[in-house]
Amino acid sequence: MSNSSLDFIFHPQSVAIVGASENVAMLSGNYVQHLVNYGFKGNIYPINPKRPTIFGVKAYPDLKSIPGNIDYVIDCIALEDTPALLAACSQKGVQLVHVFAGRAAETGHKDSIELEQKILQVARQYGIRLIGPNCLGIYCPGVGLSTGWDFPKEPGTVGAAIQSGGNSTDLVRWGALRGMRFSKVISYGNALDLNESDFLEYLAGDPETRVIMCYFEGVKDGRRFFDILRSAARQKPVIILKGGRTRAGSKAASTHTASLAGSYNMWSIMIKQAGAIQALNFDDWVDLGVAFSMVSPIKGTRVGITGGGGGRSVLSADECEEMGFDVVPLPSDIREQIREKAPIIWDWVGNPVDVSIMRGTSIGNAEVLTMMAKHPDFDFLIGQITEDIPSVPDDFMPKVHNEVDGYIQIFKGGLKPIVVVQSEKSLGINEFSNWRWRLFAEARTQFVEAKVPFFPTIGRAARAVKEVINYYQRKGS
Amino acid sequence: MSNSSLDFIFHPQSVAIVGASENVAMLSGNYVQHLVNYGFKGNIYPINPKRPTIFGVKAYPDLKSIPGNIDYVIDCIALEDTPALLAACSQKGVQLVHVFAGRAAETGHKDSIELEQKILQVARQYGIRLIGPNCLGIYCPGVGLSTGWDFPKEPGTVGAAIQSGGNSTDLVRWGALRGMRFSKVISYGNALDLNESDFLEYLAGDPETRVIMCYFEGVKDGRRFFDILRSAARQKPVIILKGGRTRAGSKAASTHTASLAGSYNMWSIMIKQAGAIQALNFDDWVDLGVAFSMVSPIKGTRVGITGGGGGRSVLSADECEEMGFDVVPLPSDIREQIREKAPIIWDWVGNPVDVSIMRGTSIGNAEVLTMMAKHPDFDFLIGQITEDIPSVPDDFMPKVHNEVDGYIQIFKGGLKPIVVVQSEKSLGINEFSNWRWRLFAEARTQFVEAKVPFFPTIGRAARAVKEVINYYQRKGS
Repeated sequence: MSNSSLDFIFHPQSVAIVGASENVAMLSGNYVQHLVNYGFKGNIYPINPKRPTIFGVKAYPDLKSIPGNIDYVIDCIALEDTPALLAACSQKGVQLVHVFAGRAAETGHKDSIELEQKILQVARQYGIRLIGPNCLGIYCPGVGLSTGWDFPKEPGTVGAAIQSGGNSTDLVRWGALRGMRFSKVISYGNALDLNESDFLEYLAGDPETRVIMCYFEGVKDGRRFFDILRSAARQKPVIILKGGRTRAGSKAASTHTASLAGSYNMWSIMIKQAGAIQALNFDDWVDLGVAFSMVSPIKGTRVGITGGGGGRSVLSADECEEMGFDVVPLPSDIREQIREKAPIIWDWVGNPVDVSIMRGTSIGNAEVLTMMAKHPDFDFLIGQITEDIPSVPDDFMPKVHNEVDGYIQIFKGGLKPIVVVQSEKSLGINEFSNWRWRLFAEARTQFVEAKVPFFPTIGRAARAVKEVINYYQRKGS
Repeated sequence: MSNSSLDFIFHPQSVAIVGASENVAMLSGNYVQHLVNYGFKGNIYPINPKRPTIFGVKAYPDLKSIPGNIDYVIDCIALEDTPALLAACSQKGVQLVHVFAGRAAETGHKDSIELEQKILQVARQYGIRLIGPNCLGIYCPGVGLSTGWDFPKEPGTVGAAIQSGGNSTDLVRWGALRGMRFSKVISYGNALDLNESDFLEYLAGDPETRVIMCYFEGVKDGRRFFDILRSAARQKPVIILKGGRTRAGSKAASTHTASLAGSYNMWSIMIKQAGAIQALNFDDWVDLGVAFSMVSPIKGTRVGITGGGGGRSVLSADECEEMGFDVVPLPSDIREQIREKAPIIWDWVGNPVDVSIMRGTSIGNAEVLTMMAKHPDFDFLIGQITEDIPSVPDDFMPKVHNEVDGYIQIFKGGLKPIVVVQSEKSLGINEFSNWRWRLFAEARTQFVEAKVPFFPTIGRAARAVKEVINYYQRKGS
């Protein structure tokens, strides 16, 4: 079966949810609501023999009662009933069944392993493709498919193939807070039929997907996977988080998705040789997703940095140089511009710009970063949000607004790639009503709305930007 | 001058703020308010020749108008007026002057460097000790001294010597959100007189301080510093964040605190040889502060882990084993306990515990972690908060409450050291009114109130715990 035909998965005209319920604590209840909430335009057919409607949508007792064909079935019934369901599906022209149920091969139980194989055999017999079992299926906001509550309805350019359901929803939920938007996110679990190679190949050829993110625990066919990965990585950035890197992780992977995790050393070599990008951990994976989907291509290492006081400036310079960036001295013609407005600091201020020494002058971080944006000595900019000065809200807030607005203007002006750094902090419930944390939360909302890439620390920003630079240097060579 | 006498700094009977103002955007205004707000019990003397009161506190035109002696002077006037101030101080028995003003040697200007030297000379002549210049001074909540707004009024056991004012307030503000509380935090800037060695020696001998945190850009006397550092590290954990590790960072340090940053390689060797702990970056520094001040001593590497679904479990196992921990298999007697309540998963569940497979059983993460707490196979526990399940608030919230309450009970029970993992996320302003983020913020408040150590990721928790284990292993040997 050719993989190029997988586009049908993401454009169903009708979806049936078998085992649909009104139990909102179960996926069998959630999927019907998701289709309605996310605006699925085709026919929605909840299947439940005991109810006339499910959440107000007309329900059917079984597949054969549905008038016309069905493209796509979300199977929420027990695994042992799935072979019979597949037979019924074949009568209705179903092309794809997403098998939600777990407790399959990953339990390690012999009967579950045999049941999986039977399901695969029956599906092949009827020419039906399977996603799963043991997975959440598809989030594709453009057509109204979702696997979770409160995900963005706005589609984007990040496509993802993710073996873990939880990691797929975490990526969407946490990534969305950083401004990431998605074309298609596939949680595919045990990969009984359609597997990582199929989805990766599809996303590589998908014009709606510009960046590919993957979480794999194991692969079904290493040789095919490597060929597809190499081909995909030539077409667009492919960012891989590998689960099961260690003995304990591999053991957990076997009881999670029945995966053989393989040697991590081999994985690392394969990812590198294929030209893909390897994430160090979950946060790094999200950072790389933000960087590759939101940061303009950066082609050199000369960086201009603003934000924070002297100690932050010192540490910022350290972290950037440690990442291989060139924290170039402040150019003399920028000094001359500063001299006009701030004669007291013109020969003292440096790069990174220490905001605390600018007190009492008529310039701030945004002004200096704007000068850097126009200057040929810099390849890219890092604008940090000053998060504390020894002052009161009336004095501090306008300074932060000036930075936020200024950085957004630089981003929109497009003269130089810019990334913003703004901390994440462990806020308690009392902080939610405090002016300081509300100020920073408002800033984050502004960045998300303006599609400005931002990172929680300069170290994480630098690490992600470094991978962007490496990627475009590889592409250029 | 003997350093053992520095205790007078932290127990002033009277504080004069020279150059006090009602300008709330200036430290000269803030310091008076801080003394009042933080409950300083001694006499507060704002000095301002033009005003009868400052924020309602009776002001004096000059030092000599104050009845009686003054212990401690916060000098908020221009640097060039400081030599004359020191002469006036000597008339009033002042022992310590904190010189707030910057734009001193760090500007690189010859006249500023000379002025610093003159200030030092005059201070020595009158036997007055100096903190600064170019620094925020002292936060000591136990006596009512503060350098910032909204810092905890409750004292704690973390003492800190920090060359950067901004890094000192960031440590207090960010650390406080994680439950850290402080004995004394000294921002000492250019270290013209009292320097890093003096404060480190003092904190090492201070019974109120159990953990020492340091941020250094340079040291004045390397030999003395190393001896003091080695001695301090023998007495309590000393966690060092070094600024100026690179060429660019060293340059920034010279214009920040006029420091000679020195070779970072030498620093690393010195920190290691002295038995101190080296932080990798600011977040790591805070993590280590949380770990050493809040986590019970951990003496082995066998870890039990709960929280999150299968993908999170796999990655958690990986990150712990990569840090050198032993993610031991779930013991058979714990399996037997689980079998009674959850026969469907007893032979399938592992360590880490995958919360998603427990659906429909009568046990959750807190129950399994409690079993681990009582079991001799584990040296310590990591309890993660499950942050997303495909469900609705009414179903999800009680599960999170059960985890939070259960983890707190394990912490209070004291059978095993436990650290909690709960994400920080980049929340926008709309998230502040969303049930999910409020739920997690409420959990954080519960952890802070119960003094439970928590970390934003399992990788960061593992890294900090590893340093704790290493430390106690060194101590034991």
